[in-house]
Amino acid sequence: MTEEITVIPGDGIGQEVTPAAVEVLEALEVDFAFQEAEAGDYVRSETGEALPEDTYDLVASTDATLFGAVGETAADVILPLRDAVDSFVNVRPATVYPGVDAVRPETDLVFLRENTEGVYSGHEDRLSDDLSTLTRVVTSSASEQLAAFACEFVEDNGYDGFHVAHKANVMRETDGRFRDSVVSVADERGVETEEVLMDAFATHVCLDPTQFDVVVCPNLAGDVLSDLAAGLVGGLGMLPSANIGPERGLFEPVHGSAPDIAGEGIANPAATIISAAMMLEHLGHDEEGKRVRDAVEGVLEDGPRTPDLGGDASTADVTDAIVDRL
Amino acid sequence: MTEEITVIPGDGIGQEVTPAAVEVLEALEVDFAFQEAEAGDYVRSETGEALPEDTYDLVASTDATLFGAVGETAADVILPLRDAVDSFVNVRPATVYPGVDAVRPETDLVFLRENTEGVYSGHEDRLSDDLSTLTRVVTSSASEQLAAFACEFVEDNGYDGFHVAHKANVMRETDGRFRDSVVSVADERGVETEEVLMDAFATHVCLDPTQFDVVVCPNLAGDVLSDLAAGLVGGLGMLPSANIGPERGLFEPVHGSAPDIAGEGIANPAATIISAAMMLEHLGHDEEGKRVRDAVEGVLEDGPRTPDLGGDASTADVTDAIVDRL
Ligand SMILES: CC(C)[C@H](C(=O)O)[C@@H](O)C(=O)O
Ligand SMILES: CC(C)[C@H](C(=O)O)[C@@H](O)C(=O)O
Repeated sequence: MTEEITVIPGDGIGQEVTPAAVEVLEALEVDFAFQEAEAGDYVRSETGEALPEDTYDLVASTDATLFGAVGETAADVILPLRDAVDSFVNVRPATVYPGVDAVRPETDLVFLRENTEGVYSGHEDRLSDDLSTLTRVVTSSASEQLAAFACEFVEDNGYDGFHVAHKANVMRETDGRFRDSVVSVADERGVETEEVLMDAFATHVCLDPTQFDVVVCPNLAGDVLSDLAAGLVGGLGMLPSANIGPERGLFEPVHGSAPDIAGEGIANPAATIISAAMMLEHLGHDEEGKRVRDAVEGVLEDGPRTPDLGGDASTADVTDAIVDRL
Repeated sequence: MTEEITVIPGDGIGQEVTPAAVEVLEALEVDFAFQEAEAGDYVRSETGEALPEDTYDLVASTDATLFGAVGETAADVILPLRDAVDSFVNVRPATVYPGVDAVRPETDLVFLRENTEGVYSGHEDRLSDDLSTLTRVVTSSASEQLAAFACEFVEDNGYDGFHVAHKANVMRETDGRFRDSVVSVADERGVETEEVLMDAFATHVCLDPTQFDVVVCPNLAGDVLSDLAAGLVGGLGMLPSANIGPERGLFEPVHGSAPDIAGEGIANPAATIISAAMMLEHLGHDEEGKRVRDAVEGVLEDGPRTPDLGGDASTADVTDAIVDRL
């Protein structure tokens, strides 16, 4: 059965790395039908709106979406699109890829970030000339859904358990609810959990990242702590991510649109291609996902390499080399 | 004129390092009258309340407070005490001290953390069995007061300007207000500012901490990002901090009560003694502050050293050595 995939290249290098990932997917024996859709700064400058309704509808109805990168309009595009796939979890691995110079080479983490609430579903009010408020939202149901996913993730991937990062010593009611909901689901399923305050996590992950494997976090904590881990593994450049919902997902590299090198044909497509591997795995094509990952790692090891990794190859050279290895 | 100093040793190693810092202060020619006050886990276990009213009143009326560390009751003690001194800014330097093994030895940062609002002044509600909310608060007045302090800090210490870290792409109204208020005060005073998203800061400070000097943040962002920087400089162990209000301040090491080594007489008193140097400077005793800092650094260079730094000296040995060098 044909699976329908929305492809949103977006701005800047998104226009280069997304077609590269599609090329890799097309080289596999998987029955995908790709539909390209528009979003980003360039769309806003033409129409006033960064995210066309058509794009939203396509993402909300196709089997999966591969997303490149957008510029200044990132929040206007990516937050509604996470919503379009009803994404309750953002999966963010932070590992060191071959050829990357890492601050902490032993880092090997996966963040499971709550993807709907916290300050992100926050309702903001301007109450006076001096005062604004934001209503941070935490529900047991969203926390439990995240926890159920985390338990499966831990079981499927052979981990012992997971850490729950929070700031319940200050946000007693909201992060208290988050922590209690997550821990109680894990307890029921017999999955071990350990709590860690998010500020303490920030210190300890620098001192010794091997203390942690899977880290379950509220939305903003996950945003910041996963970006911290990205710093430890040498930057956002190679990191993939998956926004998972009950029926569909959206897969995106963590890096941005890199306007400084856009248009030169030298962007590193690895993060987007690894995001495409996460998409394959999510759709049940585990073997193909693994083939893509192995091909990317092989090329990272042996070259050719793009300039960000010290080489002088183009996006096309690297993509061809990955396709050759499949 | 005698200055009155409240001293709160607290729990665990707080009982060891705080008297050490007082010993150093007593060795100077400064007219301080010390009054000891109680707070912490041990007080709660005796009376049910971690922070006695008497302690609060003393902190709210004396010239300055030197605070050691408390255990589980940290939030119940330190948050009201920040309030007792009307502290609008938490000053958190993150630098590498001699003898400390740092992840990023070139790190040299000062965080100026908003100390009254954000999620910390948050009102929390349990709206249903499933749903809790927290109201995050940002005012222009608090942001401007922080910014005015930051401008003076930058001018007094010879920096070019400061970074403003925030998440205004998501918290548009509240962090937008924070950012706009801070930037407009700095613009008026001719102090340069540069914005940085808090998640991007987390990545970039790992990759190259020398990009940043002074970082002005909302309350929770300052908590997490300063703890991240603490990780980069080798841990919380040596870091001092100052909670500054319009008329008084509270000075505390960033480390906790370290129950694992409490009572052994081997705790490193450096962070508390450097916090005492910040207190001296805040009270206008700049020369004495400098003498204390130099003495601490000399001892860190040449020893004796406590076990956390690979030595076998006691808290008393190190304190005596510091006093000898004054
Ligand atoms: C662009 C922004 C809204 C987004 C977020 O905060 O989630 C980004 O930082 C991310 O982590 O994907
Ligand atoms: C103990 C806790 C409430 C406190 C905070 O969050 O401010 C601590 O982490 C700190 O940074 O001093």
